[in-house]
Amino acid sequence: MNIEEQLDFLSARAVDFFSRDDLKKKLEKAQSEGRGLRIKYGADPSAPDIHLGHVVGLNKLREFQDAGHTVVFIIGDFTGMIGDPSGKSQTRKPLTKEQVTVNAKSYQEQIFKILDKDKTEIRFNSEWCGKMDFSDVIRLSAHVTVAQMLARDDFSKRYAANQPISMVEFLYPLVQAYDSVMVEADLELGGTDQLFNLLLGRELQKVMGQPPQCVMTLPLIEGLDGVQKMSKSLNNYVGIDEAPRDMYGKLMSVPDALMWKYFSYVAQVPSSKVEEWKSAVESGATHPREMKDILGKRVVARFHGAEAAEDASAEFIRIFRNKDLPDEIPEVVLSAEETGLLSLMVQAGLAKSNGEARRLIKQGAVKINDEKVSDDRAQIVPEDGMIIRSGKRGFAKVKIG
Amino acid sequence: MNIEEQLDFLSARAVDFFSRDDLKKKLEKAQSEGRGLRIKYGADPSAPDIHLGHVVGLNKLREFQDAGHTVVFIIGDFTGMIGDPSGKSQTRKPLTKEQVTVNAKSYQEQIFKILDKDKTEIRFNSEWCGKMDFSDVIRLSAHVTVAQMLARDDFSKRYAANQPISMVEFLYPLVQAYDSVMVEADLELGGTDQLFNLLLGRELQKVMGQPPQCVMTLPLIEGLDGVQKMSKSLNNYVGIDEAPRDMYGKLMSVPDALMWKYFSYVAQVPSSKVEEWKSAVESGATHPREMKDILGKRVVARFHGAEAAEDASAEFIRIFRNKDLPDEIPEVVLSAEETGLLSLMVQAGLAKSNGEARRLIKQGAVKINDEKVSDDRAQIVPEDGMIIRSGKRGFAKVKIG
Repeated sequence: MNIEEQLDFLSARAVDFFSRDDLKKKLEKAQSEGRGLRIKYGADPSAPDIHLGHVVGLNKLREFQDAGHTVVFIIGDFTGMIGDPSGKSQTRKPLTKEQVTVNAKSYQEQIFKILDKDKTEIRFNSEWCGKMDFSDVIRLSAHVTVAQMLARDDFSKRYAANQPISMVEFLYPLVQAYDSVMVEADLELGGTDQLFNLLLGRELQKVMGQPPQCVMTLPLIEGLDGVQKMSKSLNNYVGIDEAPRDMYGKLMSVPDALMWKYFSYVAQVPSSKVEEWKSAVESGATHPREMKDILGKRVVARFHGAEAAEDASAEFIRIFRNKDLPDEIPEVVLSAEETGLLSLMVQAGLAKSNGEARRLIKQGAVKINDEKVSDDRAQIVPEDGMIIRSGKRGFAKVKIG
Repeated sequence: MNIEEQLDFLSARAVDFFSRDDLKKKLEKAQSEGRGLRIKYGADPSAPDIHLGHVVGLNKLREFQDAGHTVVFIIGDFTGMIGDPSGKSQTRKPLTKEQVTVNAKSYQEQIFKILDKDKTEIRFNSEWCGKMDFSDVIRLSAHVTVAQMLARDDFSKRYAANQPISMVEFLYPLVQAYDSVMVEADLELGGTDQLFNLLLGRELQKVMGQPPQCVMTLPLIEGLDGVQKMSKSLNNYVGIDEAPRDMYGKLMSVPDALMWKYFSYVAQVPSSKVEEWKSAVESGATHPREMKDILGKRVVARFHGAEAAEDASAEFIRIFRNKDLPDEIPEVVLSAEETGLLSLMVQAGLAKSNGEARRLIKQGAVKINDEKVSDDRAQIVPEDGMIIRSGKRGFAKVKIG
């Protein structure tokens, strides 16, 4: 690839990109010096289950590697070990050194399913942040202004709405920006929610006498619910370590409209092809289920091989499709709390009363996930995707919410 | 003194005081435990020349000591050794460890002219701040919000006016507040410009599980120019280490209207007496010069003894008053740059032209600070208070501005 081709390839599907010109100059310089660029990517050390949301970024990093560049994968253990000292976030509990080590190992096992190990540098930001004392922090802080920090979209909104912003939240982006200085990043990649932090890294490098990094963002893909960003804590994710059957099954539950994003960003199908398929579905020429089967098989094949993908697809069809499940099953939103089977039937709209529910159970008409339930006093814990069936025509699919 | 009397005595002349009730409770508790309170006062380590502006606070501290309490005198060497890393302030150059040590020694020599050494604890905040690492700073920052910091008067104004506020400026008040936690201050005293920082100390102690300190402020007294806050950098100060003659002479140049503030806050004359004297001057019964002589002698006596005070007064009268100097000498505002004597005479309004000025000089009519000048090509550096005289009736007093 010549440099223009490389620029097209590397910037494909990016949401923000600062800037093609900058990157072009960096590529020319690196080429003339016979070296690759340093592509920074920061990872939260608390969640070692890499899911398809991460794959969006990892795919792009791999593209950079395929073009000859080095990925500097930074595990943010320094802030991870502090957590959220204001205690406001449940999801940011401080991690111990041991947990970080375990998580980092797990990270490496997972990311190298996508990244090229030989072109990856794994770094922990405690390496430099852990050596900084108060006076270093003061000197670092001198490079940014309060107005600069408050310009961040979520900060300015919260400040305007009189919602408290802890001073810590001003320090965390600074840590991330300083990471760019320490690893001498040429480009930093992140989700669109990271744009401010990435640009701050660029600014900090500038004031600290380094060539400023290029900045590229990719979209945050929605999870299986089709609404919220894919995340472990929302349990709407597909982990890359999940068994083929689970991975395939979860992908089958992706809302039709979202499938195209997964094709582009997860399965890396070229946009021309995605458009073609989309038209076919919209015209009715192709059933969405067929497309979703292709998506499921492609993703499973990537992480478990083609055979496992075919098996997962076949098993899914055997269990669900051939067992008279209708294409569209009415959803019932329930909380994940244990509840009596009778009440569950009534809530799911499969019985008008506990009495009717009891009769149906006694008749042997009720199945949960294809298993008959005959105890009318059974206690059930609803799960996402659980299928409750009553006779040949009564179906309900549980959605936890 | 019973507690109510002590409260009256200690809060006399305070501008802000949070709060009498709080302090009362602390005094009662301390009394029942047979101990004194810890009164915190923070000092900038860069300016070891203690002047009457500092005396305002030191006097109050001494009053606390006289009531049995301990002064914790904190030398802010930690931030002093960092200076202003944004490089925007010329007056905040970083100090070396050696400079801090020299300055601290000089501080101690000076403050014990007012404070009781046995009831003073000198502390350097590098003792605790120097041990803090980045993660400690993050944990500390978690206790304050951005809105809290931006509530500081000068910050909110600058933010509204789009003037940059460095992040460092958010960290410095936090250092000062943390000092209160570390020394377990019961009360912090400062100038009115310190109110925000003192209250932040109070808040920080609260969230860090300590009883919050009381806060008391005293006014910032104007310097000899009568306009700007007394400060070394503005050269409008009277240092407590100055020679009796200089000290007395400078006090004679205090604007009449300001003299009463000096009587109250520097000479600690009870307010009833100050009011009485003020009325006497306003009614014309007493000449302001007489009052200023009393002020000058009181202040000199305090730092150099009664005899030195009388001598300084007598010498001043001998030099200035008995040498036909009129009571009111017209002021001429000049810059402190070297200038020719002829031009000086013209600028001072003592000659209409260089020619006239030259004639007056040749006639031996011209004196500067009571010394005859006969060289019409002399180069003069104007100084504040310099008296230029031409013959018996021509006078001008230089004011640098």
